[in-house]
Amino acid sequence: MVRVALVGQGLVASTFCLGLHRIKGGRAGLEGVPLSDELPVKVEEVEVCLSIDVDSSKVGRSLSEVVSGYFPGEGLGGGEFERVEVRRGLHLGSTHGLPIEGVGLEEMYPLERALDELEETLLEADPDAIVLVSTTERFKPFGSREELEDSLKSGDSSRFSAAQLYLVAAARYARRRGGAALVNGIPTSIANDPVLLGLAEESGLVVFGDDGATGATPLTADLLSHMLQRNRRVLDVAQFNIGGNMDFLALSDEGRNRSKQETKSSVVKDILGYDAPHYIRPTGYLEPLGDRKFVAMHMEYVSFGGAIDELVVTARINDSPALAGMLVDLVRLAKMALDRGLRGTVYEVNAFYSKNPGPKGSKNIPRTVAYERLRRWAGLKPRWL
Amino acid sequence: MVRVALVGQGLVASTFCLGLHRIKGGRAGLEGVPLSDELPVKVEEVEVCLSIDVDSSKVGRSLSEVVSGYFPGEGLGGGEFERVEVRRGLHLGSTHGLPIEGVGLEEMYPLERALDELEETLLEADPDAIVLVSTTERFKPFGSREELEDSLKSGDSSRFSAAQLYLVAAARYARRRGGAALVNGIPTSIANDPVLLGLAEESGLVVFGDDGATGATPLTADLLSHMLQRNRRVLDVAQFNIGGNMDFLALSDEGRNRSKQETKSSVVKDILGYDAPHYIRPTGYLEPLGDRKFVAMHMEYVSFGGAIDELVVTARINDSPALAGMLVDLVRLAKMALDRGLRGTVYEVNAFYSKNPGPKGSKNIPRTVAYERLRRWAGLKPRWL
Amino acid sequence: MVRVALVGQGLVASTFCLGLHRIKGGRAGLEGVPLSDELPVKVEEVEVCLSIDVDSSKVGRSLSEVVSGYFPGEGLGGGEFERVEVRRGLHLGSTHGLPIEGVGLEEMYPLERALDELEETLLEADPDAIVLVSTTERFKPFGSREELEDSLKSGDSSRFSAAQLYLVAAARYARRRGGAALVNGIPTSIANDPVLLGLAEESGLVVFGDDGATGATPLTADLLSHMLQRNRRVLDVAQFNIGGNMDFLALSDEGRNRSKQETKSSVVKDILGYDAPHYIRPTGYLEPLGDRKFVAMHMEYVSFGGAIDELVVTARINDSPALAGMLVDLVRLAKMALDRGLRGTVYEVNAFYSKNPGPKGSKNIPRTVAYERLRRWAGLKPRWL
Amino acid sequence: MVRVALVGQGLVASTFCLGLHRIKGGRAGLEGVPLSDELPVKVEEVEVCLSIDVDSSKVGRSLSEVVSGYFPGEGLGGGEFERVEVRRGLHLGSTHGLPIEGVGLEEMYPLERALDELEETLLEADPDAIVLVSTTERFKPFGSREELEDSLKSGDSSRFSAAQLYLVAAARYARRRGGAALVNGIPTSIANDPVLLGLAEESGLVVFGDDGATGATPLTADLLSHMLQRNRRVLDVAQFNIGGNMDFLALSDEGRNRSKQETKSSVVKDILGYDAPHYIRPTGYLEPLGDRKFVAMHMEYVSFGGAIDELVVTARINDSPALAGMLVDLVRLAKMALDRGLRGTVYEVNAFYSKNPGPKGSKNIPRTVAYERLRRWAGLKPRWL
Repeated sequence: MVRVALVGQGLVASTFCLGLHRIKGGRAGLEGVPLSDELPVKVEEVEVCLSIDVDSSKVGRSLSEVVSGYFPGEGLGGGEFERVEVRRGLHLGSTHGLPIEGVGLEEMYPLERALDELEETLLEADPDAIVLVSTTERFKPFGSREELEDSLKSGDSSRFSAAQLYLVAAARYARRRGGAALVNGIPTSIANDPVLLGLAEESGLVVFGDDGATGATPLTADLLSHMLQRNRRVLDVAQFNIGGNMDFLALSDEGRNRSKQETKSSVVKDILGYDAPHYIRPTGYLEPLGDRKFVAMHMEYVSFGGAIDELVVTARINDSPALAGMLVDLVRLAKMALDRGLRGTVYEVNAFYSKNPGPKGSKNIPRTVAYERLRRWAGLKPRWL
Repeated sequence: MVRVALVGQGLVASTFCLGLHRIKGGRAGLEGVPLSDELPVKVEEVEVCLSIDVDSSKVGRSLSEVVSGYFPGEGLGGGEFERVEVRRGLHLGSTHGLPIEGVGLEEMYPLERALDELEETLLEADPDAIVLVSTTERFKPFGSREELEDSLKSGDSSRFSAAQLYLVAAARYARRRGGAALVNGIPTSIANDPVLLGLAEESGLVVFGDDGATGATPLTADLLSHMLQRNRRVLDVAQFNIGGNMDFLALSDEGRNRSKQETKSSVVKDILGYDAPHYIRPTGYLEPLGDRKFVAMHMEYVSFGGAIDELVVTARINDSPALAGMLVDLVRLAKMALDRGLRGTVYEVNAFYSKNPGPKGSKNIPRTVAYERLRRWAGLKPRWL
Repeated sequence: MVRVALVGQGLVASTFCLGLHRIKGGRAGLEGVPLSDELPVKVEEVEVCLSIDVDSSKVGRSLSEVVSGYFPGEGLGGGEFERVEVRRGLHLGSTHGLPIEGVGLEEMYPLERALDELEETLLEADPDAIVLVSTTERFKPFGSREELEDSLKSGDSSRFSAAQLYLVAAARYARRRGGAALVNGIPTSIANDPVLLGLAEESGLVVFGDDGATGATPLTADLLSHMLQRNRRVLDVAQFNIGGNMDFLALSDEGRNRSKQETKSSVVKDILGYDAPHYIRPTGYLEPLGDRKFVAMHMEYVSFGGAIDELVVTARINDSPALAGMLVDLVRLAKMALDRGLRGTVYEVNAFYSKNPGPKGSKNIPRTVAYERLRRWAGLKPRWL
Repeated sequence: MVRVALVGQGLVASTFCLGLHRIKGGRAGLEGVPLSDELPVKVEEVEVCLSIDVDSSKVGRSLSEVVSGYFPGEGLGGGEFERVEVRRGLHLGSTHGLPIEGVGLEEMYPLERALDELEETLLEADPDAIVLVSTTERFKPFGSREELEDSLKSGDSSRFSAAQLYLVAAARYARRRGGAALVNGIPTSIANDPVLLGLAEESGLVVFGDDGATGATPLTADLLSHMLQRNRRVLDVAQFNIGGNMDFLALSDEGRNRSKQETKSSVVKDILGYDAPHYIRPTGYLEPLGDRKFVAMHMEYVSFGGAIDELVVTARINDSPALAGMLVDLVRLAKMALDRGLRGTVYEVNAFYSKNPGPKGSKNIPRTVAYERLRRWAGLKPRWL
């Protein structure tokens, strides 16, 4: 059994719920779940025990109702999600500029009280893994442990982004519970932030992240390593993404866009070893695309004798399922890490599932290699090595 | 020093010559040569000592002249290729239907005499590696060693394709010389033919092959393994190729096309483990494209919760440089294999460089994994493992 | 009211039926019907009065049942198509090589008797327009009226393709009824065959055709005229199509493919005025694509000062709806032509709706121009002229 | 003879010069010049008599030198451009943020004096057509003639963008000379600004514009009209552009980008008649692309019976030649307009050559229709009507 808390009950979290529901009911297979039924913890054992959000139209309703709102006609009523009520979480302006009315605990109470409330909510629900899939946000890393502690003491919640404060809450929860895990699906530096990771390690918190490696970034990584392995010199890479879900709307905001751009761009230098000129970033919002995104990538490279070749990739990808499927692995791997008594982060997991794998200073590697190293870590036979 | 014999002095072999010339003259880098300057045998040590063809307009002329014919204005005259004369080889209808007037040794002499002539030519030039880059051909595998020997005894050259008979000649040459290598860049089964490979092993011949893994096939392999690693179910794959060089003209012939189609298609089942419906084959000839080819690939797959995604790749690739760059590695790896006293084939080499890696029954694996195994075999540090 | 007979009750004809049903029931709009509700004859007035096929699994069943077979769950039962029974038509090997068991009237009776039966069937149903959407077929044009008459007299049905013989039957029907129309949606030369067109004219038969201008061909025409209007010189055009419906399966047959290739290729010279090198043809069959087709086109051209540009189009198109929507116009235009007392063919209609617009010697023109000329012919205000 | 003044001696103007030079020398054809040699005024009659810029590294040098700087090795020295010296023009911050050191006349003199200087320069060189191809700029339209006159009187040059002030100078020049033309190749509203156009009309100035219809916009127009003509409902359009020339660098600036975005976006509603959701704008700057741009477009639409199709276009286009080729027509058409005694703007010309055809309130129409109307205006036989 893996008990899961979802933080940010948007489309990704709801796709996660719906997918689990369908798989358990035999109405969907394990497509999109990378390690499928190979892990000792089975997909059927994953259970959602808590959902947290700040959207006033969600807080207080049953998880079942909220998920059904995204997928009418899926008949989720009366099932496993009926018993879970959406609870209020932290806001910190994370929905700023979006058509969402949200109120966070930190707007209702002083900072310490807000953290206490959250801790109680977590203790009551008792999740093994807390999954962070709230909106992409602006953030400022903490320079030192002192700065973090001072900010907490001063009660100034505005220094924190929502994800950073959730990390603090998760660490406190892990300390009291005796171990827990946080899976970070958004670009905020958590596994890559030495200060936050230090706190996690001390507290017995496992952290996976940062930013789910879905969409075009892992594909770009594989294409770049394809070039590297043939010693082709990449001249330039342009990559555009456009979609119609809340995440793309949020990324219209310049500050959020920059967070994303950095996790997406690091892949070029990490894989190639040199910083080939590139333009890789979320590009626009186009409402009718809904949860689908359209991706276009253009790459030029030098081949033998100076010949110049050109590669173009275009794709139409369902955005939320890509991440939701990975979360099904990540919460199970989190449970395995806890069972092994680990704390802090695990590069072998991050390297495959994250756009910006922690800890800080780690590199993106070709996903095929990451896959084999992940399998070894998970106790599975490598597939080709 | 690696001494190289080129069989089939067409565009690939000539691009190989031009590239070497430029690299040695400092006018081109090592782009497109996968193992670059990492191998103990350096690119500068590669030397062409023999060129074989059947085209009457080439035989008897200097290699310098023939290569310059493909690349006028490159100033190849007076250089290293001046001393090499293009010698007559085997025909066996390999240029059938193409605008080439060719006469093979087997059309001038009885079969045994033709093989003797070839053997003498080889002994005189003393190549370490014989590189087969003649035209894609129809062929029929030999069912048994007896069938092979009987065909040789009967003097019936028509049972053989050119590549098959070159293998026989190379084996005889290796036996007399005390070791040599054959690098098969075309689709004919050589490394995948147990009868021919048996002969090679007995004779001290190293064989790499079959069919150079250039163009869209290795890219397809990497994309398919990308899907597999995320447990996405591939619904269908369509891949088209069109180009304007002699190889595409040759592939207009149905029989040759089938040879190619098989080496290209095997990748689907090899990588995915199931035979996803696919249409993968060279599609057409369009003269103005010249040595460039246009590739289009369409793939659909099932993601989490049954979502269906779509991936399209289009590329414009210079065809001959892609293979020529790999040959620069292969002849050096051939020399290393000979220095290690090997005979027969080496899967670790084939898995990275060949569309249809021998020996028979071997599978295509993700190229990234093949790359790391190749590096280990070549005594290099894996890059990521 | 327009009474329609469908010949070849496959996916296109069934999509036509379903679409009409949905439109009449208010469950679909007029998307894909070029002239929409602008014509004096309204879409709601179109009525299917006859369906003809040779497939033993269809003949004798209600049209409602057959259409429902293609679209289960659409609830077509009990509606307007219940009263129409699928009647046996001509075969002439048109389903050769396809997984269809078909028997034609000409296999049951002597040729004249078969034609008589067909004529009676038509007279009984009394269609204004006979729509030919049977399988793409091989055919040989008639050299002269004598050859046609002699073939009929000799009773040798094998000289005819199905479409050619349907034309004969339609002409006889038109003569007896006092006017009728044949809409040719397949590549067989009917409107482009002077002998058949002569017979039609004499008999009071209106003929529209040949081959529905759906998919990539009209798009190619528009892109080529885009180039021409900027005086860009087109260097080469490659166009691939792959699909999974019966038509693509049929086109795997070399002879049928050639019929199609010719109607598709003529567009290059017609529009540009010179025969830019091109490779344009249906390329393959891939079952899981079903009625969707994947199209890829690559074009290179010279711009100002000798600059070379490159254009790539890829598309995923639902095949049958594209033609079915045009048929909704064509049968209404046929009715208008009959009301105007016309006979023979109408270039203004063909130029917009047909890949190979008749009469013989006519040219493809940019579809935008064809559109405006069509509007004028139909009594509508041009949109931009 | 057509005498041309180039304003903004960047890549477009220099490509225009080089192209003319090559054509006159018989080293290039008329590709990319839409009306080719059909006009009464021949391409060979086009002559550059003046070049204006603010870049300190260009002003004072010969046109020959400046053009050679863009195209070294083209041997432009000693030819027709030797006699033309680059003269200083207006700046008004148009190069703000770009790596260009520029000083404008208005920075050296009071406004009236600056305009006088410019007028004298023009009178001396005596151009028929003044071609505006300076950098894309921010601008604010004038609300009334009074506002314009007041700004001039007050001597406050900062109210003007460079293009707006060039219009004023061109109008004064036209008044004194007795007719002249301004061809506006950039997005600033000139032909679309009633106040400026009024001034032009009074002064005997012909104005063509606004913004050259190159690249993806006219292609999008043609694709949208393709959809409209088939009554397909467009669901969404996304279009990305990335390039490496100064214009793309300039468009990184948000204000400039907006100018461009508006001329590009208007096409959707103009052609379709409804404002289908779209994201169409210049997207990014990627230096190694140089003058080439990479374009990607994604379009979804509803076909018959509700089927949803998808069209993707990707292109690699040489940016400057596309506009330069059109300018060769525009200056000749300008001469024809002057010979006919026209003043103000000519929709028939703008509709084909401009992204945002003036006068204000005019619509984009399918380019094929625009082409035929243009031909008629130019006294040429329509090609298909």
